[in-house]
Amino acid sequence: MERDAAPPEIDDREPLPAAEAARLSESLDDENRLKPEFVRRVREALDAGDREAVYEAVEPLHPADIADLFELFDEDDRLALAGAISDLMGGEVIAELNDHVRELLVEALPPDAVADFAEQMETDDAVALIEDLDADDRQAVLAELDPEDRAAIESALAYPEETAGRLMQRDLVAVPEHMTVGGLIDYLREHADLTTEFWEVFVVDPLHRPVGTCQLSWILRTPRTVALTDVMKRDQTLIPVGMDQEEVALRFQKYALISAAVVDDSGRLVGQLTVDDIVHIIQEEAGEDVLLLSGAGDGDINEPIALTVRTRLTWLVVNLGTAIVAASVVGMFQGAIARFALLAVLMPIVSGMGGNAGTQTLAVIVRALATNQLTSSNTWRMIAREFRIATANGLSLGLLIGAGVALVFDNPLLGAVIGAAMLINNLIAGLAGILVPLTLEKFRIDPAVSSAVFVTMATDVMGFFSFLGLAVASGLTG
Amino acid sequence: MERDAAPPEIDDREPLPAAEAARLSESLDDENRLKPEFVRRVREALDAGDREAVYEAVEPLHPADIADLFELFDEDDRLALAGAISDLMGGEVIAELNDHVRELLVEALPPDAVADFAEQMETDDAVALIEDLDADDRQAVLAELDPEDRAAIESALAYPEETAGRLMQRDLVAVPEHMTVGGLIDYLREHADLTTEFWEVFVVDPLHRPVGTCQLSWILRTPRTVALTDVMKRDQTLIPVGMDQEEVALRFQKYALISAAVVDDSGRLVGQLTVDDIVHIIQEEAGEDVLLLSGAGDGDINEPIALTVRTRLTWLVVNLGTAIVAASVVGMFQGAIARFALLAVLMPIVSGMGGNAGTQTLAVIVRALATNQLTSSNTWRMIAREFRIATANGLSLGLLIGAGVALVFDNPLLGAVIGAAMLINNLIAGLAGILVPLTLEKFRIDPAVSSAVFVTMATDVMGFFSFLGLAVASGLTG
Repeated sequence: MERDAAPPEIDDREPLPAAEAARLSESLDDENRLKPEFVRRVREALDAGDREAVYEAVEPLHPADIADLFELFDEDDRLALAGAISDLMGGEVIAELNDHVRELLVEALPPDAVADFAEQMETDDAVALIEDLDADDRQAVLAELDPEDRAAIESALAYPEETAGRLMQRDLVAVPEHMTVGGLIDYLREHADLTTEFWEVFVVDPLHRPVGTCQLSWILRTPRTVALTDVMKRDQTLIPVGMDQEEVALRFQKYALISAAVVDDSGRLVGQLTVDDIVHIIQEEAGEDVLLLSGAGDGDINEPIALTVRTRLTWLVVNLGTAIVAASVVGMFQGAIARFALLAVLMPIVSGMGGNAGTQTLAVIVRALATNQLTSSNTWRMIAREFRIATANGLSLGLLIGAGVALVFDNPLLGAVIGAAMLINNLIAGLAGILVPLTLEKFRIDPAVSSAVFVTMATDVMGFFSFLGLAVASGLTG
Repeated sequence: MERDAAPPEIDDREPLPAAEAARLSESLDDENRLKPEFVRRVREALDAGDREAVYEAVEPLHPADIADLFELFDEDDRLALAGAISDLMGGEVIAELNDHVRELLVEALPPDAVADFAEQMETDDAVALIEDLDADDRQAVLAELDPEDRAAIESALAYPEETAGRLMQRDLVAVPEHMTVGGLIDYLREHADLTTEFWEVFVVDPLHRPVGTCQLSWILRTPRTVALTDVMKRDQTLIPVGMDQEEVALRFQKYALISAAVVDDSGRLVGQLTVDDIVHIIQEEAGEDVLLLSGAGDGDINEPIALTVRTRLTWLVVNLGTAIVAASVVGMFQGAIARFALLAVLMPIVSGMGGNAGTQTLAVIVRALATNQLTSSNTWRMIAREFRIATANGLSLGLLIGAGVALVFDNPLLGAVIGAAMLINNLIAGLAGILVPLTLEKFRIDPAVSSAVFVTMATDVMGFFSFLGLAVASGLTG
């Protein structure tokens, strides 16, 4: 893993020459996406086997944009591109790649090449690279690493996936309590092997337990003679090494953290997390609810297609089961439908509108649970809130459709039946939309994954049952 | 707005006394949410009018947790709580409050009290506080501010909402190119009025245009005599002042930024954005897709209920329209249904499964568009991908339901009809799920807001039409 010499990262490049700046603006559009013309040009050069042209086009790009370029190509072009720009494929590009794309490229490489990448990367990125490999390949790569890097990666791999232990950086700056601001600056200047990737300095006690954090701007603003214990903030957010990444992301967000100390069970400082590593987790965790609720798994467009089909089909088959249950409710009323086929025309309106209302409530509640806004302290208030919303919407929709049906079909009883069924199903939808996710959450089942099946079943079954049942009970069908 | 004296934020508090630490752990659970017992205790003290007990319970909390506490209460308790802990209601608490809760509290306060809060806050938070007020209140508050603060807030308010100009911090550290590391450190120590909220120093040319950025850790690791131009990074991500916040968030994420320079049209440095201000935008923008797709507006559980009803009802009425269109398709087949009522039993299965498959594709495509993963360079590959997935799922589901229906009802022709309809509707679902959002995006309409209506209509209409139409065409209904 990268250890910079001091003075770190001296950048003696000239400002971008005009030609290069122009080439860069050729590659990115206003919204910072790679331009289609640019992508096409690279693809054509790849197809023509003109590696030099490919290299020249890609070279000015930021590593994150190079990673994006890989995602835009299909599998064959990805491997060809990696071959053409192997000199540019540094640890930064690899770290920015989509998981599936990285796996494809890494599987095509020999272990020593993977090890070379891992050595260029920070611990967390190297772990992300190596954790994807199967056991044999993983051993082969680890064997190629420096003993120190290997030890760091192996100890990270010992923590479960998606925990702070996997994500954290082991390289950090920790200093004893007795140090002064001047002493710290001298220490930083003298130790060439320290990381440059830090935004705060951790002050630790003799047992290496964090006692405070110094933001670098405070250190730069303070006279050399002041003790660190006088500038540091004692009130810290410590992250236990086993904490789930979703929880870590919420804490970074809630307390607006830039970095945080990771501690083991005995409270010793074992690593740091910085916000730039957390930002993509915040985005992933917030964005995954829509994918999970719709049964699209992690919804990654780079996923191998067989895996996508399996994930989506599993969900669809489960829903087929609930659709059959709902259909069997309709089956109970076949006789009535045969006598009065208009019921079959109108019944999907009632079930469908219930489904829409249920999905609205479900989306709101799943987000509120995920962001810790809905807790047991406001559960009852929120249930009452959803009930009031469902009543208002159900009455409005019931009146609207009821009056419409009564007029169009000149049948006030039919209007009353569909209006009442609409109100009932909206109430079912509102209550199912909040009670289902709350119940799943209580049993520690992710409400985003399983709620929709139950809510849809409730609104389908009750939509059909309330409408067809009321129609029969009211004597509409003779 | 806060301007710290150097040495900044010297924290001379003792470590938390044991009693206070214990009280803190009494208030938060393992997942960092306020414990229900704690919330209940505060609520009881509020109801009993025991302001001292309320103050004592709330005082050890972090401002973000105090803000959470407000959200857990209903409107009356929120105002009572604000009264009981007015000493603790600093700018930080106000800044952390949910928009709706903040509006409620701020409307209850006189202008000079609001102005006092604004002066304690950083520009961006003060802007967020004041932008909610109506024009008269806003003028009254601005009149109470220091001229300098007023100017800063007024110029921020001149930028459109949700742009970099609204979000940015005006306080930053910018230094000329000729400075050395030592010169910078001396400048920072000598200027007591500089902000302490910075993570990078911007190096500017004589026209105040940024030419490079220095990470503070590099400055601390470098000998005093080195020129800043030798440690700074020239390759910067500059944010135009009019850039939309969603775009800003994507850029912070893509390039792992901690802070970034905001520049005006002539390229002059006018402010900075720091990642802690962007993190909640990343979370909001990623989380809003599920709410928008389901028609739940911004889905905030603290929103006044009338507003929530209006938002959700609008969406439901639009969907009622599409449900009526779908029902009218069924209406075309009333005669067939009257002769063969089993069709009415089975038809919701076909339309419902199409709806599920369409929602899956839609969720994936909306996320891929929002994260810039789907661009015109890979559109055709993605359409082909969704078509293949839809074919695989459609064939599987069609065979499954077709064979099941053939066996259960001992009617192979009925099985063939429903199987074929299922395949057709899955293809419709897959294609609508990708083509609808792509088309909306082309016309610069947010695909998350409007796609679901069109996709559901397509799968409902085609589900009914393909199944009932095939049933009639095949002679099933005699």
